[in-house]
Amino acid sequence: MKNYLIHDEWKVIEEGFVPELNRITESVCSLGNGRMGQRANFEEKYSGDTLQGSYVAGVYYPDKTRVGWWKNGYPEYFAKVLNACNWIGINVTVNGVELDLATAKVIDFRREMNMQHGILTREFTAELTNGNVVKVKSERFMSMAKAEAGAIRYSVEAVNFDGEIEFTPYLDADIKNEDANYDEKFWTEVVRAVGNTEGYIVAETRKTLFHVATGMKFKAFLGADELELAPTMNEREKYVDNQFKVTVKSGETVTIEKYAVNLSSQFYTKETILEEAQKVLAEAVAEGFDALREAHVNHWLAKWEESDIRIEGDVAAQQGIRFNIFHLNQTYTGKDAHLNIGPKGFTGEKYGGSTYWDTEAYCLPFYLSTANEEVARNLLVYRHNQLDRAIENAEKLGFSDGAALYPMVTMNGEECHNEWEITFEEIHRNGAIAFGIYDYIRYTGDKDYLAPLGFEVLLGISRFWSQRVNFSNAKKQYVMLGVTGPNEYENNVNNNWHTSTMAVWTLKYTLEAMNFLKEKHAATFEEVKKKCNFDEEAETARWNDIIENMYLSEDKELGVFLQQDGFLDKEILPVAELDPKHLPINQNWSWDRILRSCYVKQADVLQSMFWFEDDYSREQLERNFNFYEPITVHESSLSPCVHSILAASLGKEEKAYEMYVRTARLDLDDYNNDTEDGCHITSMAGTWMSVVYGFGGLRVKEGKLHLKPFIPSQWSAYSFKMVFRGAQLKINVTQEGVTIENHSDKQIEIVLDGENTVLAANASVTK
Amino acid sequence: MKNYLIHDEWKVIEEGFVPELNRITESVCSLGNGRMGQRANFEEKYSGDTLQGSYVAGVYYPDKTRVGWWKNGYPEYFAKVLNACNWIGINVTVNGVELDLATAKVIDFRREMNMQHGILTREFTAELTNGNVVKVKSERFMSMAKAEAGAIRYSVEAVNFDGEIEFTPYLDADIKNEDANYDEKFWTEVVRAVGNTEGYIVAETRKTLFHVATGMKFKAFLGADELELAPTMNEREKYVDNQFKVTVKSGETVTIEKYAVNLSSQFYTKETILEEAQKVLAEAVAEGFDALREAHVNHWLAKWEESDIRIEGDVAAQQGIRFNIFHLNQTYTGKDAHLNIGPKGFTGEKYGGSTYWDTEAYCLPFYLSTANEEVARNLLVYRHNQLDRAIENAEKLGFSDGAALYPMVTMNGEECHNEWEITFEEIHRNGAIAFGIYDYIRYTGDKDYLAPLGFEVLLGISRFWSQRVNFSNAKKQYVMLGVTGPNEYENNVNNNWHTSTMAVWTLKYTLEAMNFLKEKHAATFEEVKKKCNFDEEAETARWNDIIENMYLSEDKELGVFLQQDGFLDKEILPVAELDPKHLPINQNWSWDRILRSCYVKQADVLQSMFWFEDDYSREQLERNFNFYEPITVHESSLSPCVHSILAASLGKEEKAYEMYVRTARLDLDDYNNDTEDGCHITSMAGTWMSVVYGFGGLRVKEGKLHLKPFIPSQWSAYSFKMVFRGAQLKINVTQEGVTIENHSDKQIEIVLDGENTVLAANASVTK
Repeated sequence: MKNYLIHDEWKVIEEGFVPELNRITESVCSLGNGRMGQRANFEEKYSGDTLQGSYVAGVYYPDKTRVGWWKNGYPEYFAKVLNACNWIGINVTVNGVELDLATAKVIDFRREMNMQHGILTREFTAELTNGNVVKVKSERFMSMAKAEAGAIRYSVEAVNFDGEIEFTPYLDADIKNEDANYDEKFWTEVVRAVGNTEGYIVAETRKTLFHVATGMKFKAFLGADELELAPTMNEREKYVDNQFKVTVKSGETVTIEKYAVNLSSQFYTKETILEEAQKVLAEAVAEGFDALREAHVNHWLAKWEESDIRIEGDVAAQQGIRFNIFHLNQTYTGKDAHLNIGPKGFTGEKYGGSTYWDTEAYCLPFYLSTANEEVARNLLVYRHNQLDRAIENAEKLGFSDGAALYPMVTMNGEECHNEWEITFEEIHRNGAIAFGIYDYIRYTGDKDYLAPLGFEVLLGISRFWSQRVNFSNAKKQYVMLGVTGPNEYENNVNNNWHTSTMAVWTLKYTLEAMNFLKEKHAATFEEVKKKCNFDEEAETARWNDIIENMYLSEDKELGVFLQQDGFLDKEILPVAELDPKHLPINQNWSWDRILRSCYVKQADVLQSMFWFEDDYSREQLERNFNFYEPITVHESSLSPCVHSILAASLGKEEKAYEMYVRTARLDLDDYNNDTEDGCHITSMAGTWMSVVYGFGGLRVKEGKLHLKPFIPSQWSAYSFKMVFRGAQLKINVTQEGVTIENHSDKQIEIVLDGENTVLAANASVTK
Repeated sequence: MKNYLIHDEWKVIEEGFVPELNRITESVCSLGNGRMGQRANFEEKYSGDTLQGSYVAGVYYPDKTRVGWWKNGYPEYFAKVLNACNWIGINVTVNGVELDLATAKVIDFRREMNMQHGILTREFTAELTNGNVVKVKSERFMSMAKAEAGAIRYSVEAVNFDGEIEFTPYLDADIKNEDANYDEKFWTEVVRAVGNTEGYIVAETRKTLFHVATGMKFKAFLGADELELAPTMNEREKYVDNQFKVTVKSGETVTIEKYAVNLSSQFYTKETILEEAQKVLAEAVAEGFDALREAHVNHWLAKWEESDIRIEGDVAAQQGIRFNIFHLNQTYTGKDAHLNIGPKGFTGEKYGGSTYWDTEAYCLPFYLSTANEEVARNLLVYRHNQLDRAIENAEKLGFSDGAALYPMVTMNGEECHNEWEITFEEIHRNGAIAFGIYDYIRYTGDKDYLAPLGFEVLLGISRFWSQRVNFSNAKKQYVMLGVTGPNEYENNVNNNWHTSTMAVWTLKYTLEAMNFLKEKHAATFEEVKKKCNFDEEAETARWNDIIENMYLSEDKELGVFLQQDGFLDKEILPVAELDPKHLPINQNWSWDRILRSCYVKQADVLQSMFWFEDDYSREQLERNFNFYEPITVHESSLSPCVHSILAASLGKEEKAYEMYVRTARLDLDDYNNDTEDGCHITSMAGTWMSVVYGFGGLRVKEGKLHLKPFIPSQWSAYSFKMVFRGAQLKINVTQEGVTIENHSDKQIEIVLDGENTVLAANASVTK
């Protein structure tokens, strides 16, 4: 755990340069706009430790799989998030000495990410090896209003010298991924062009053949006066620059405004992408830095209007939750149904591939509550778009007749992961994808999504479950053998309760969806039946048989559901009684020891109990929580939130807060020593859920919003904003009570603390 | 399955060159002498497909592990069997055109391995691109009598031309492993020297720093006349040669006698290894090709005297079984307790590391029955030598207090494998190592081996079992969670019956061994107690508790032991009822499908039932055999032999023969399409067991040899030779009856078909 970033309600601040933590700060202060992202790397050369990273959403490379021991069914490749063209670079030489904070003496330094405005600034004073002192300010953003554009304002003041400062704004696509299995470069050049104060590179990814057109144009000013430039233009493969010198006197400042665009062939045709890039760049330049900036800031201010959480009396918590909301909104804006939310977003390369079950299980609720329904709907459509690939994936594993298994990790719908116990067996993910459809419809009321998109996905998943179970002659019930639950500290177990529960639930929900289609969208249903060769009678008969005869293991004496067969053969010892030197067990124990221990990595039985809370009595919830939580090590950042929400629901407020705190500042404090690789974007949504679902008690039941807020004793007040079916609400919670403001013109009836409450348009209620 | 090698009782013959199967022939016709080995590569250059391979026993390289997903506890490296200096090379150029069978027109060709004599010959006639026709004969062997030496006689006849033939005998240590994880070379040069008709290279393995000194010396003859040579001497890093031309007339023959030695720093000090190599080489040269050859052949004839199996009426079977015996004797001669039997022997690189549980489970019985007891004893001492490493290995996995876990794969005692489900969980291997001690003592009567070597190993293994089980509150018995049995088509199961059975048996046998020590070697026992911190009272109390309360799953209704918990939840469908297109399942099914199927890769429950046959009634054996064999796919070459023996024991003679046939010619017919990588050396011992333990009915009970031979209806007669406690026996079986000859001066009482039978010295009995 680190504690070097200054606590502030709206900003993340590094005061004084900490080179040894530079990679962490680079991750934390990454900027993005849903279409592209950029780590908080320096504009000028930096020869110290850094992970250069510029990312273009959806652009990946299928790196050849690295595997020790091949297992049948493994994919041949692993999609890697690609480091793309460096567009921020501006090298600076002062009287012949290169500005490089690794060699200069840093007199002062401040890097600051303003989350309210989505702007990264940096200010430093440095003395170069020739004694020249410069004061540098940089400011940059990736426009939320104009998603392909980014802009930088970079100024250098000659503090104590007269002479020449040379600037080299450049584009460099000759870059590498650190995370490359065979140390290869993934980009080839299609075309490059360099002109006076501008440059362009169109680069192509190997194998996937994405084209990305990157363009830059810049202006330079001495004081307030724009300079006429006649730079030297340099180019080599995948690289272009402009080099020019400015003569300065002590006290004078040179400012560069660098505009850049990144266009991807996902949205433009390859034939015209360079022209388009030139056009978009020209527009940005015409608009000018300040206007671009203003539009961008306004976009953020509006976003916060929808999604802010305010915590009073705890600056660290305030910063933590806004940090999470900020990154979630940077990573996914919901405009495109073929993009998704990578576990590292635009903050690093690791965990190649972008889409995990995290999307449905953790992220979807955030976007449902903080954006219009189109955003969450696009996450669902993404899965529908990949349904054919999910069917192919299941076929590779021996399934047939339209059974669909969504991949554990994917970029384009194909599986990218290759650990047999995960890839082939952690199939509860299929249930999460089905649940996402249910969750979306429950929240938005958009039941028509089932006709046919939602239903087609549910059908594929139900067919998978139906083939994946087998009838046990010994148990005279259906069993599900060889699975891995969300608790990945158990592999290849039989009858994981969560997975089997999800299977039964999916079958039921698919039948419900089918009946809805038959009733309300009969023609569509007939089309789907034909298209999918759906044998309604035979298939639903089997589904019903499975629903009625599925083995779901329970220990009647303890009154708990059993995570898997044989769970009670283990030595059950609470984590609290383990010698702390063993923790985290994933760093201290060999894998087999972890597997045969009772310790739970993240919510497993409790995951489906959380999702289907109303199907269980409070006593059941409590018994299972009291059994599993004490043996849970929460060694996944996705674990605490579910426990926090359940604890809140059970009135265990201290426990709920304890769980919330575990991930609230995960990246800001580098809690797991891995933020240097990038931030934990999807778990940020979990932390958000801890506040809104946990402390706020948000639920949706039968079309109605339920709230049941409490306030942790550590806080004096908090509030959160959310949208629900067109209403925009702000929930204020203090130690004294709750006020709910309706910031919209729509009257809404909610259930507050169990009581029906009408919230008139633009009114509020207090309780 | 291929069928291109000519069936012959004593030889393996390739008649007519088959370039596309060259790698297979190279594997099959590999030569070795326990200290080094050589694939049947050509002496002259061959630019076609070949796997060049020369191996020096015990010399390995710790290649950096390649792994997709790291699991705690994995070793950092993987020992690779090393391709070593090429010492056979003699390049030939005829009137300026290089002799290369990939470019020449091959008129006739015969490659022949004489197993009776241990000699590889090759004869061919080839027309070069310049029209010159040569007739080449080569003959080579790796001396069994002088284990560091090999010799080649290589002659070229000018069939249709006058002119110049250039010869280049060379040594080349600038070679690569095909099986290298990161494409690195593993050898560096220490020193090289080249002289007139001789050359030397001392090469060092990187990291492990073995030195291997290779020397060559040669003579050349025109017809019968030795030539005076003044060759050009060439050298470069890791390479030396001599180049010389001989003027020939049509019909004349030039013959090269090339002598070579390989000395390893395992047996010589690095400082003097070059001198020693020169000395050994000089001795070999002085002895001369014919004398060396004769001593070598005599050694083989004597070996066959001890270990031959003769099968009449089935040449293919005869060739197959001799092929197996030949390779087993080439691979391990039992002279050194730090060598062992690699799964590929000296026939290929694959499966880096040399020692698997195959050694104890399959190979030990062969060496017990066909060599003096020192040979088998050295295999046991090998494990004792590595006991400390086995303790360290267990410590890495969280065990303590002297618990020992022998590695799955090892070269020097350290684990070399990294598949968690195998490396950490296939722990029954520990039981096999304990069983090896028992088996050795049972066969030889050398009970004193327990004091202290055997006991120390048993103690370490028992301590491991004692820590590896845990008490299940649910079952009120000890359970063994998270293991993989010999049937690797099940991973991470609970209570694998075989593993638990081996654990209980080890504990019992260790107690028995302890009592023997206390009684017969009291002082030694006290020393061991002290050395190993053995808390006799506490430790044996726990062992006894486990022995009495171990959970061993059995289905009373079916009357079978259950391979693991939940086995009967599977769909049980005999292999015979599977659509054959699914077979082998390891090529046609994804890994998860294999895992959740009922199909058994190799004997699992039946492995310990075979080992402890007398602990079970015939009915129990039969029920379990009838339950498991039909669902066994025998996709390990180690599977059929156990089933063959059990089938024989149960009177299922046809089944026994069917199982025997499955591996009898595994490599000769390239049954699994993988002989190009090398031969399946350890499974050859299994095939041998099928004949001797299966058809011959060999058992040892209470110090007595039991035999109960039958003859498969496909054969007219067979006989096998064996040694038992100083007696040398030949068992002849025909369709009419059995004759047992005692070829030794020792009278022996055996149990033949259940009846005590006295075999006087040098006498025979017929039944």
